[in-house]
Amino acid sequence: MRAGIVVTGTEVLTGRVSDRNGPWIADRLLGLGVDVGRVVVVGDRPADLLAALGQLADDHDLLVTTGGLGPTADDLTAAVVAEHQGRAMVLDEALRSRITAIVDGVVAQRRHRPDPAALAAGTHKQAMVPDGAVVLAPVGTAPGLVVTPAPGRDGVPIVVLPGPPGELRGMWPDALAAAPVRAVLERASPLTQRTIRMWGSWEAELAVTLERIADRIEGLEVTTCLRDGELEVVTRYRPESADQYPTLQAAIETDFAATVFSVDGGSVDEVVAGALIDRGWRIATAESCTGGLLAGRLTARPGSSAYVAGGLVVYANEAKTTLAGVPAELITTHGAVSREVAEALAAGARAALGTELGVGITGIAGPDGGTRDKPVGTVHVAVSSPTGCRHRELHLPGDRDAVRQRTVVVALHEVRLLLTRS
Amino acid sequence: MRAGIVVTGTEVLTGRVSDRNGPWIADRLLGLGVDVGRVVVVGDRPADLLAALGQLADDHDLLVTTGGLGPTADDLTAAVVAEHQGRAMVLDEALRSRITAIVDGVVAQRRHRPDPAALAAGTHKQAMVPDGAVVLAPVGTAPGLVVTPAPGRDGVPIVVLPGPPGELRGMWPDALAAAPVRAVLERASPLTQRTIRMWGSWEAELAVTLERIADRIEGLEVTTCLRDGELEVVTRYRPESADQYPTLQAAIETDFAATVFSVDGGSVDEVVAGALIDRGWRIATAESCTGGLLAGRLTARPGSSAYVAGGLVVYANEAKTTLAGVPAELITTHGAVSREVAEALAAGARAALGTELGVGITGIAGPDGGTRDKPVGTVHVAVSSPTGCRHRELHLPGDRDAVRQRTVVVALHEVRLLLTRS
Repeated sequence: MRAGIVVTGTEVLTGRVSDRNGPWIADRLLGLGVDVGRVVVVGDRPADLLAALGQLADDHDLLVTTGGLGPTADDLTAAVVAEHQGRAMVLDEALRSRITAIVDGVVAQRRHRPDPAALAAGTHKQAMVPDGAVVLAPVGTAPGLVVTPAPGRDGVPIVVLPGPPGELRGMWPDALAAAPVRAVLERASPLTQRTIRMWGSWEAELAVTLERIADRIEGLEVTTCLRDGELEVVTRYRPESADQYPTLQAAIETDFAATVFSVDGGSVDEVVAGALIDRGWRIATAESCTGGLLAGRLTARPGSSAYVAGGLVVYANEAKTTLAGVPAELITTHGAVSREVAEALAAGARAALGTELGVGITGIAGPDGGTRDKPVGTVHVAVSSPTGCRHRELHLPGDRDAVRQRTVVVALHEVRLLLTRS
Repeated sequence: MRAGIVVTGTEVLTGRVSDRNGPWIADRLLGLGVDVGRVVVVGDRPADLLAALGQLADDHDLLVTTGGLGPTADDLTAAVVAEHQGRAMVLDEALRSRITAIVDGVVAQRRHRPDPAALAAGTHKQAMVPDGAVVLAPVGTAPGLVVTPAPGRDGVPIVVLPGPPGELRGMWPDALAAAPVRAVLERASPLTQRTIRMWGSWEAELAVTLERIADRIEGLEVTTCLRDGELEVVTRYRPESADQYPTLQAAIETDFAATVFSVDGGSVDEVVAGALIDRGWRIATAESCTGGLLAGRLTARPGSSAYVAGGLVVYANEAKTTLAGVPAELITTHGAVSREVAEALAAGARAALGTELGVGITGIAGPDGGTRDKPVGTVHVAVSSPTGCRHRELHLPGDRDAVRQRTVVVALHEVRLLLTRS
């Protein structure tokens, strides 16, 4: 069983919005044993959407569309799916009443009261559905749909979901429960996905390991991906090949003993969180060039209040001194971007927040501020703790955003290494 | 002229990595007057990639692929593109020497020295190119390619680019300069894109405005998108319709005078930065539930050191008191998530960093911590300045990540409103 996904929206196609729905749906379908063949992004143009549906229907068993269900004229997914499946659009009166009640509820909460006629027109548009479709109850104002081909027509079921990720996710259980989707899921066989992560190894070396054991892992679909310096090995397999996976895992654990940091799919964030909880330690940050992104990432996990005390964003040099207690003469002598200042920031974060672990980051993210001695991409990361300290000087490629993001990942790994190796 | 984009990589298809290349390329092509029809994401499977190329070649004038040029066996884009265009794969000796030199340079900087034979095999693989292809010099280790159909074969030019965004972007100018690409670009006519942004209006009301002037803006392609509470109107047009755009802009500026905050495409970040610079003010933050994300976003812009002093991440209640000077009894009386504490945080940020403007954020991002009176999604945002203060209580839907991200956007708009209305 294979599904194809169509993401609609000129804002996604032209890069103004990055799509979060395609990956989310793909991940859910894979978990249900439904493979994903292709994801197609199209703009708000009927001909392109129609072409995408036609091409995907040829070699997939189920299609899922996202977006284009809003109240405006450029939201045309329902009508185009109806055309593809050979069905007329009809007004669903019960649905119209339901959407009206939802919109009235939202309006009541808002300071700005919109024109009722405008809202009524939008509601009418959103209540037009393909004849015979299964209607999925709105989470926002847009209903979802499951549309099968008209009687006597070839094709596959199409699940039509709204674009806002919260609405789409809220509607997903109902979509899976619809009879045409259940029929596809019943024919799917489970697909297991396993992930191993390494920090600091080369993709080319991994290729040698995979080559050596190739004839013993023929039933595994192995993909490798180097991202933010982490080398990720993701393997998918059907039940009949499950006994091959230990061969792969053992080979990687042996060949890359020094760099494997997760064999259960856990991210570096999860490894760090677990290690902090195990020790009963709390962490604090003092960030210059990353401007709070490390603290933001540390607090992204639910329950992080158990081990994150807080942090300092010391963007101006004065803040490094007043908030993190970095001596002004240290900055004058070594420069704000130096090992000495990074270490003082790490110690200052610990002192200011009263934690066992502190991270200090200072660097030149660019595009300006670089010098011959300290070009853009020069970053110092320091970690301080009662049982030891770590420091790393980085020379990172890429633009401002890339330097900042990569620095956060390096800092997390430095924390991980301190916690797991000392 | 229309281009199709193929993003390859099982890690993208299955949602482990979110694609940054497709949108970037689409934006660049649109700027050159080349429309983008569809973006297709495929995994590392030759049959799916071949199908995607075949389908896109039918109704596009140029194709661009990203990813699949690495040194491992699952990197197969070059070979599949060669097959599609009817060309053999050949070893490019000059390219092999060049990649070898690059790899040697990288190895010299690393602590961990990989197996030379493994690297040589990877280099050999990356130096295999379709016969007759234009080779684009590597930025990392992977070369780019421009591959035209073999003599006598139908088809369109295909630009083959590596997956790492920094490498892809570095190679882009060379790709545009390749003769087969230049020939397509010369036949493109300029396409202008203009953006208007609003904060707090309804998409359904906008639909009424667009409907009213529909017959005077027939040459404009207007798309609307509601995202993070911002309503975005993006319009694309060819030179012959340029005189219709002022009609659209005037209608929106009249009907939505209270909510339009940008008619030149500027983001709220840019509006805030400009307003701070105009006043000569600096900003500081004290964040609880957003954990540094607002500071991270404020410092994302180059040159932000001119107006961002820094911030406090006061995740633990103790940090709210010790760092931001929030009286402990205020927290006891009103709770950490309250208007009073948000306002004290805003004032505390100003005092700690010595700035004119301070932002305080406290809330319940979930999934735990909600109560009947203060459910998950309850957030207080306060802005403090010498000329006035603002406060807003939010009740946000969605998961932890959605609550945190939306809070950052609301906080930026509260800062904007304080700066532009007082």
